[in-house]
Amino acid sequence: MNPRDLPIGVLGSGLGGLSVVRALRRILPFETFLYLGDTAQGSYGNKSAETIARLTLHAGTALARHQPKLLVIASGTASAFGLAALQAAAPCPVLGAIEPGAQAAAAAGGPVGIIGTAATIRSGAFEAAILRRSPGTILYPLACPLLADLAEEGWIDDPITDAICRRYLNQIPFEAHTVLLGCTAHATLLPSLTRVRPGTKWLDCGELTALAAEDMLRSGLGFRTASAQGQLRILLTEDSPRVRESGARFLGEALEAVEQVG
Amino acid sequence: MNPRDLPIGVLGSGLGGLSVVRALRRILPFETFLYLGDTAQGSYGNKSAETIARLTLHAGTALARHQPKLLVIASGTASAFGLAALQAAAPCPVLGAIEPGAQAAAAAGGPVGIIGTAATIRSGAFEAAILRRSPGTILYPLACPLLADLAEEGWIDDPITDAICRRYLNQIPFEAHTVLLGCTAHATLLPSLTRVRPGTKWLDCGELTALAAEDMLRSGLGFRTASAQGQLRILLTEDSPRVRESGARFLGEALEAVEQVG
Repeated sequence: MNPRDLPIGVLGSGLGGLSVVRALRRILPFETFLYLGDTAQGSYGNKSAETIARLTLHAGTALARHQPKLLVIASGTASAFGLAALQAAAPCPVLGAIEPGAQAAAAAGGPVGIIGTAATIRSGAFEAAILRRSPGTILYPLACPLLADLAEEGWIDDPITDAICRRYLNQIPFEAHTVLLGCTAHATLLPSLTRVRPGTKWLDCGELTALAAEDMLRSGLGFRTASAQGQLRILLTEDSPRVRESGARFLGEALEAVEQVG
Repeated sequence: MNPRDLPIGVLGSGLGGLSVVRALRRILPFETFLYLGDTAQGSYGNKSAETIARLTLHAGTALARHQPKLLVIASGTASAFGLAALQAAAPCPVLGAIEPGAQAAAAAGGPVGIIGTAATIRSGAFEAAILRRSPGTILYPLACPLLADLAEEGWIDDPITDAICRRYLNQIPFEAHTVLLGCTAHATLLPSLTRVRPGTKWLDCGELTALAAEDMLRSGLGFRTASAQGQLRILLTEDSPRVRESGARFLGEALEAVEQVG
């Protein structure tokens, strides 16, 4: 097979990564995608550094067996702790969700708020990547552990979600006109986020990662040669009606071709 | 050592189990306790049956090495999936958090609401245990995945927590005058729960499990012979300032004598 025709492997710590798949399919409709969502492990966002790194390496290695031309880590938390180890182990390039968001945040200039899971914020990964590009940028990192939970529960565009977003976001000084969504599950909460903090420029690490994947195909890995809509195959470590329902919200369509894997 | 002087091992899937330790220490002040909180794994509440059973057996086996006279599973979710396997493997009696709550619910009579994590409710463990004692009881089980997250985040006695409790509890018909709190983290939310559903009789599975442990000591295992306040040793698979802060809310005092274990 022409290496350009190999699939793109996408690794999610749960279901939030399906929002990255949604963006990837919109931007790269002719590519084929293989998504592995580690739904059996629950959220990575409250786990330890060592656990997240181990789980990311394990899931990434399983995906690599399908011979992808590119692996995308569609999770801020998994990228913060597991990118380096997976890059060292994988036989193909690995793109994480930290650098694309950090690049956009550095380019935005001015004070930047960063929201993410407890683990992602504790890692300091976004701050380090932004400051490497743009030293001296004023950053306001904030752990918002409930946001991913709300997104998974599906309380979207909801007054309770508004109140929780307001509680968190009000802790970031309003001089920060740019806020980086450091968790791929956050984008589904944009209706609430926009309401509680109007005029803010939101940088979605998931969307930016999908755009960075397109760049990598353009600058070397190559686009798939076929001109028919590419397929999406979904592997989940835990499948259930609840998982399907929650996943469909992130993907923007019903989950089909789901396989449960060990 | 006199077997009566051995410690009581308490297994929590995270920090919510410390609310059971709090009740145990109030009821049994002279006993010594060893708590193992599997904080590195995040919440068990969204994991698969197999994963929860495996983690519970693993943590329980680690606790059993300390030669407890009794093991208490201070988590509705871990009890729902892991009790039988741990009972088969442990060298001492193992008490889970399902039966004590179910016994009280069956005794209460009338329609009973049951709230718990997604996994606990999916298991049907409370329903089965209640119906075995009191066939025909009308039960309203309801998964409330955000409640344990709110309790861990520490938004206690809070208008947002009121709104979330109202959203969930309104799904249980008001003819259910009794609601079983099927997650040991729920008890800290009682200020909100009581406000949104006044006149309800709340059965706290954690408190009831502590009382059942006292019964087991009285009816055979024996009380510790010393008359000095017993010690509490806390083992956590992940320790951090955030974990300490959240844990102190469940325990009702600062976490001291914490050891991180692998």
